[in-house]
Amino acid sequence: MDKELVKAVEGAESVAIFPHISADGDAIGSSLALALALKKTGKKVIVYMEENIPDTFKFLPGIELAGFISEDQEVMDLNIALDTGDTGRLGTRADHFFKAPVTINIDHHITNTEFAQYNHVEALSASTGELVFLLLNEMKYEIDTDMAKCLYTAIATDTGGFKYGNTTAETHRAAAELLSTGIDVAELSQKIFDNTTFIKLKLTQKAIELLELYENDSLSVIAITQDILQSTGARDEDCEGLVNIGRSIIGVEVSVLIKEKSSNEIRVNLRSKTYVDVSEIAALFGGGGHKRAAGCTIKGSISDAKEQLISIIKDKLNRR
Amino acid sequence: MDKELVKAVEGAESVAIFPHISADGDAIGSSLALALALKKTGKKVIVYMEENIPDTFKFLPGIELAGFISEDQEVMDLNIALDTGDTGRLGTRADHFFKAPVTINIDHHITNTEFAQYNHVEALSASTGELVFLLLNEMKYEIDTDMAKCLYTAIATDTGGFKYGNTTAETHRAAAELLSTGIDVAELSQKIFDNTTFIKLKLTQKAIELLELYENDSLSVIAITQDILQSTGARDEDCEGLVNIGRSIIGVEVSVLIKEKSSNEIRVNLRSKTYVDVSEIAALFGGGGHKRAAGCTIKGSISDAKEQLISIIKDKLNRR
Ligand SMILES: [Mn+2]
Ligand SMILES: [Mn+2]
Repeated sequence: MDKELVKAVEGAESVAIFPHISADGDAIGSSLALALALKKTGKKVIVYMEENIPDTFKFLPGIELAGFISEDQEVMDLNIALDTGDTGRLGTRADHFFKAPVTINIDHHITNTEFAQYNHVEALSASTGELVFLLLNEMKYEIDTDMAKCLYTAIATDTGGFKYGNTTAETHRAAAELLSTGIDVAELSQKIFDNTTFIKLKLTQKAIELLELYENDSLSVIAITQDILQSTGARDEDCEGLVNIGRSIIGVEVSVLIKEKSSNEIRVNLRSKTYVDVSEIAALFGGGGHKRAAGCTIKGSISDAKEQLISIIKDKLNRR
Repeated sequence: MDKELVKAVEGAESVAIFPHISADGDAIGSSLALALALKKTGKKVIVYMEENIPDTFKFLPGIELAGFISEDQEVMDLNIALDTGDTGRLGTRADHFFKAPVTINIDHHITNTEFAQYNHVEALSASTGELVFLLLNEMKYEIDTDMAKCLYTAIATDTGGFKYGNTTAETHRAAAELLSTGIDVAELSQKIFDNTTFIKLKLTQKAIELLELYENDSLSVIAITQDILQSTGARDEDCEGLVNIGRSIIGVEVSVLIKEKSSNEIRVNLRSKTYVDVSEIAALFGGGGHKRAAGCTIKGSISDAKEQLISIIKDKLNRR
């Protein structure tokens, strides 16, 4: 890590930390961990949020250091953006971010625009939590159980519980150090991952009910209409993860979630397991993504979208 | 690790490995990894299974080294039991196990009866996979990607994907070393964890449909009758994990799964999150377990069992 960046952190007497808008576990966890560590060395520290912290992460230590920017907010010696790929991800806080005499940007998004004075971007790192862990090590700050809880949350959420392809040996080495501070991994995992709602469960029930298998059970399709969302009381974001239901079935190669945004706009999520390149399918409709996970938007009715998709995917499955 | 044990492994020219009956990911993964490693040094190796390897684990490297004991099976120089707490867990293979001139028992069950000549039992280890990993390190055997896949599977399954309380810093350190051999963690995780069946999904759908919340949504109850199992085509073992559906809901403290084994025998699974000791509840019916996970069998009808359980749990919830 850049010595100048480390010096800038060590030299500041007051520090504000900026996680990205719609802050996730990595943004919040890495921000609170860094805030707790800097606070412990006697610095004045605040974490500026764009929105309220989601209920799921309200249990995290250091939450009392988080707040909002007031109209006549004082300017700190140093502003640090965490997990933030570009200034757009700072939302309404972007102006205030650049008011500090020194700015730092620590992130793991490959698309990071290096918008600050000091930029530490590691695209091969699975989470910003890992980068903050390494920064604290470099500054020889002792990581206590409170900081460890925050960093573990950051790392575990961004790697899907160490399951995603971004997980590296370094990720596990960081987790090992965090666990050795004495955190209760079972309790923490439960707080991070076991947090569904009754409504979301009811939507899952409906999704399984609607799940259809085609092509010798190698293609799974779930179509969610606006009617279904309304009848279950679920919101659009409750559909997140539903595409994984189909993918979890043995023998399914392609899983599709088709969601009616409006009567003329259909959102499609595609997943595959081993050989179908779903990014090619998404590209046919102007969408994009990766070989195993892609998405697109189709104009038209949900039934037309479904018919088109099934026909295209059947063709891909048979071309193996 | 005991030097004599290590010498016994190194000295043997032929080795048979015995995972426990109803072999799980840890038993199979650690057995195949050790078999591959010993084979690579020129030893004659076989893994003796009690049953066929479950479909989920058929992708594992080294599967060709697994087989069954024939009637006039030759005796190897060394027999090693892995992940096996007592000789009962060797099933029909117990007699053959003791025919070898040297026997070894490597395990992490606290109840292990140390039935072999050399016993290496580490109750604080999260998996036998970890112990085999340490043994291979001690013998300075290089762990290749095939062995790493097997050991990662062993470790990941026995720790519920690094989420259970048995996960330690050592667990993550082992995972770090395994990942650095170059295994594809996303592909592997998917094979290990995304392997439901359509029937199991339909049972999940039904379970959510039947899920009831009591006491300001702090108690979740799912009751599965024989009729439901029959109508979905699900088997008894497909109910595994259903109790976690209730536990995953925000605000639920106690989750109960009540399953009708017969018209007069009800199997109960209990989970709690933070303060209710469910082992006390299970003990009232002659069952047992831990504070956060317990089980018992109740004689009587499913409706009576449900009524009794709800009344007892309500009381526990209100005594907080
Ligand atoms: Mn991140
Ligand atoms: Mn085990």
